[in-house]
Amino acid sequence: MPRKRYLLTPGPTPVPPEVLAALGEPVLHHRSPDFKAVFAETRARLRQVFRTENEVLVFSASGTGAFESAVVNLLSPGEKVLAVSHGNFGTRWQKMAAAFGCDVVELTYAWGEAPRPDDVRRALAASGALVALLVHSETSTGVVSDVERLVAACDDAGAISVVDAISSLGAVPLETDAWGVDVVVTGSQKALMTPPGLAFASVSERAWAKVEQATLPRFYWDWTRARANQERNETPFTPATSTIVALNTALEQILAEGLPAVFARHVALGRACRAGARAMGLELYSPDDDSAAVLTGILTPEGIDAVELRLALRDRHGVTIAGGHGDVVDRLFRIGHIGYVDVFDITTALGAIELQLAEMGASVERGAAVAAALEAYASTVAV
Amino acid sequence: MPRKRYLLTPGPTPVPPEVLAALGEPVLHHRSPDFKAVFAETRARLRQVFRTENEVLVFSASGTGAFESAVVNLLSPGEKVLAVSHGNFGTRWQKMAAAFGCDVVELTYAWGEAPRPDDVRRALAASGALVALLVHSETSTGVVSDVERLVAACDDAGAISVVDAISSLGAVPLETDAWGVDVVVTGSQKALMTPPGLAFASVSERAWAKVEQATLPRFYWDWTRARANQERNETPFTPATSTIVALNTALEQILAEGLPAVFARHVALGRACRAGARAMGLELYSPDDDSAAVLTGILTPEGIDAVELRLALRDRHGVTIAGGHGDVVDRLFRIGHIGYVDVFDITTALGAIELQLAEMGASVERGAAVAAALEAYASTVAV
Repeated sequence: MPRKRYLLTPGPTPVPPEVLAALGEPVLHHRSPDFKAVFAETRARLRQVFRTENEVLVFSASGTGAFESAVVNLLSPGEKVLAVSHGNFGTRWQKMAAAFGCDVVELTYAWGEAPRPDDVRRALAASGALVALLVHSETSTGVVSDVERLVAACDDAGAISVVDAISSLGAVPLETDAWGVDVVVTGSQKALMTPPGLAFASVSERAWAKVEQATLPRFYWDWTRARANQERNETPFTPATSTIVALNTALEQILAEGLPAVFARHVALGRACRAGARAMGLELYSPDDDSAAVLTGILTPEGIDAVELRLALRDRHGVTIAGGHGDVVDRLFRIGHIGYVDVFDITTALGAIELQLAEMGASVERGAAVAAALEAYASTVAV
Repeated sequence: MPRKRYLLTPGPTPVPPEVLAALGEPVLHHRSPDFKAVFAETRARLRQVFRTENEVLVFSASGTGAFESAVVNLLSPGEKVLAVSHGNFGTRWQKMAAAFGCDVVELTYAWGEAPRPDDVRRALAASGALVALLVHSETSTGVVSDVERLVAACDDAGAISVVDAISSLGAVPLETDAWGVDVVVTGSQKALMTPPGLAFASVSERAWAKVEQATLPRFYWDWTRARANQERNETPFTPATSTIVALNTALEQILAEGLPAVFARHVALGRACRAGARAMGLELYSPDDDSAAVLTGILTPEGIDAVELRLALRDRHGVTIAGGHGDVVDRLFRIGHIGYVDVFDITTALGAIELQLAEMGASVERGAAVAAALEAYASTVAV
């Protein structure tokens, strides 16, 4: 087995060496002035990356935990909630809201579709739900939904919008305050290029008013307590201090590069990945346009098992990519291009895939993918 | 301000360099064979350190999160639960159970006392509660309760015992299976000498039967789903993979040293710390016996503010210790001796405290503390 590893999944993502070095610094005590100084900086940087003036609450948890915090702080038992699904994660939030005894109004699209604002508007009007759960980047399919228009539909209906931006925040534009998104949830291990273990929720003033009425029980996820603690640069319970120190470094790098440049890089990586896959003669599963900046979903040639392909890529070439979910588990593989990824990571993945598919007997065009990917990338960043 | 830092709090605790190095390794994907191999090893090592044959569930959260998982998996709304407090953390669990709508039967002792098994037996008999929440090491006071006898009292009453062992597990003996403890909760950042961000719950067969009847809502904390995932070396949601890799290294070190040697080291460090404090002429707040192996609570001389002392220790000497809670916040300071701590960390703290107290005008015996601490330590480990 090769020693060198290439991580190209849509989370956890590769982490810059400076972030790993920060992670390995001596542990800080969470009530010490040393930590508070870091946390003050992290809070300010999070607000910049979230594009919000509101406090971004920090939880030691995975993204699912932070999403659960939105459900239990905004809703009451038996309360109607619109939960929109266009893939695996939207379906997870439908199940979560049901587990908490909410009356879940499901708006479910086929995998690969994008939710339509008019459907959201109608579903909210028909149900009277005051909260809508939405997914920005559906990591299972690569579809990035039009959150600006979906949130406008929520606004029209007077509903609080909760957006799962777990794989999108920091990869594609999300204008939290300008678009009026009430709650944005993300995790550390995606485009924020930090190891997993932290998750976040930004909360608008309108959402805070809803929190006061919501009666689902909460303790670890209690937003009110979290905000009061964060205002003095603390957290209610011992946070993942080392991961916060690492995140602070990653956020500094993201802001130094500049969000427009970061978003342009993700678009260019998506173009490179799609150009490479097409040059090899493969069929795309994720959209064949610049909205697919988070990950590229690709189908194996007929007769080639995607699970087998992934295991061989990892065992023989050290390349880790993601698999499919649901109905397309046998054909779909996904290349993530968020986090600390550049075009040569993409060409490495494409090269390994080409080699492995050929060895598995697939008829793929040889030698074209890497050149096509580099060409697509170079022509994008030159513009 | 000095550059070198000494962390002597009862969590987060100092972490061995090998553990920090493991933390900084390239990030692994949580569904990859690389991670699964590490997680399999970690699960086995956790069972050894927990002294149980049962699965130890791993949550990406702080210890409070794992304790919340016990409440929501074992209890139903309105159900009676005995919650025993002898300090800050016991009171937290009383409030937590109340927040989830349980009918909390409070058994509350003064800070510094230890809970009495007969009181637990009587309270369970009188209330009919089927679950008891207990604290092993009360981090706010340094009192370590007699969990073996408290759990026996629960057994007599047919109640499930849930033990907060957050600052005790890996520092002092806790025989989960031999004593019949149903649920043991701990965190990564205490005696397990790993950065914060992971928390654990071991669950007995008897407790699993109670889980099936409990109806409090749960999703992120769902034990049944967690166990099913762990049996294939996965977790339901993206875990703090880097911290798990680090924990695996820390557990390896703990098991290589051997639990009896680890426990003896903690006893010796407690003796050293108490001997040093006494030699300086200071009054102990935590018990003056070998039960106080997790931390030493010390009162400042009359007229010396403990908060001011702590800030000066940190700013002028780089030494971080913990403060007091509640009624004794002005007089109490706490030196943790769990995790990657040796006797020279203790003498460093004692030396800095002696110097700083003298500068603040306290009448302390000079030059005696370090020698007394080393003497107490050497005579213990030689035995």
